[in-house]
Amino acid sequence: MSAVSTPPVTPTPARRDAESTRTAILKAARYLLARHAHGDITLKAVADRAGVSPPLILKYFGNKDTLFARVMSFESDAEALLAAPLDGLGPHMVRHVLVSQSEQGADPLLRIVFAPLHGEQGDTLRANFRTQVTDRLTARLAGPDAGLRAELAVATLLGLGVMYGIARGSELRASTVDTLVDRYAPTVQAYLTP
Amino acid sequence: MSAVSTPPVTPTPARRDAESTRTAILKAARYLLARHAHGDITLKAVADRAGVSPPLILKYFGNKDTLFARVMSFESDAEALLAAPLDGLGPHMVRHVLVSQSEQGADPLLRIVFAPLHGEQGDTLRANFRTQVTDRLTARLAGPDAGLRAELAVATLLGLGVMYGIARGSELRASTVDTLVDRYAPTVQAYLTP
Repeated sequence: MSAVSTPPVTPTPARRDAESTRTAILKAARYLLARHAHGDITLKAVADRAGVSPPLILKYFGNKDTLFARVMSFESDAEALLAAPLDGLGPHMVRHVLVSQSEQGADPLLRIVFAPLHGEQGDTLRANFRTQVTDRLTARLAGPDAGLRAELAVATLLGLGVMYGIARGSELRASTVDTLVDRYAPTVQAYLTP
Repeated sequence: MSAVSTPPVTPTPARRDAESTRTAILKAARYLLARHAHGDITLKAVADRAGVSPPLILKYFGNKDTLFARVMSFESDAEALLAAPLDGLGPHMVRHVLVSQSEQGADPLLRIVFAPLHGEQGDTLRANFRTQVTDRLTARLAGPDAGLRAELAVATLLGLGVMYGIARGSELRASTVDTLVDRYAPTVQAYLTP
């Protein structure tokens, strides 16, 4: 079972190009969707931002709706958010949102906040958020009212993300992540393990 | 000092028309601003929605920027939000947000959530929110870290508003306002009067 003489499995240049193109298109769509209403975004705008042609987007994603369906998934974000044992999940989630907000400018989870701007696509965003984030958290909770407690924990979390995103030069932005986890996470944890 | 024979002070029809026109314009601008990025909204779109002509908007508000500056104030919303004694302010604020969300479809405070979509006007929204909401709350708090505590209380509150707005047919939406105040407000209050 030695793999010493086996060359590393790397994608061929063509495959790597295809992947980086797909990534660029998704990134462009995500960027625009965080700044414009869905109906105001054209395929051409996504193409321009990604540095590709509109037909190439169609080739990779079918159409604008299927592209945005991909962008509107919280699958991978939820996995990172929920990757901790239940008894430390509150602090982990608070830290995750704060680190994403400060390092990436915005936590991808926060896309849910813009659902009201996106018409029917907003309904997709809401449904995905519920099944991929809230319901998955609910499934891990014991005791009564697990569904409501999960929603209140997520509400608390989203509020911190929003406030951190809009604050400028305030005490919130001047605080360390550790300080904020210490002060804010107990509430989140109390909904998870009351 | 009897006013029995004094006719009630009512606006003249012309003045009443002017006021209802101003209100219609502000309402249209607020509606569009909650659904589109600032740069995507034309004066004509506001005029169409308000049922007036673009020149009439200019007559009442000067230009698009001064119109949106008015729309971007939280002055009257903050007054209602903070209208309670400090020892009962947490429950009052939570109830205020929930009632606005369920009765009006969206609490006007929640406009702050869309600040990232509005470019430079988003900075106005952020600055207004800070001076008109967060700083005003901070001024009422005693003890250390009042600024940070006010921000964390507002964060908690905004999160509930966001979650309530995006939830559909969930336990959160099925709960009474009283239940949610009971379960959620203690956290908010704990930041105000620790």
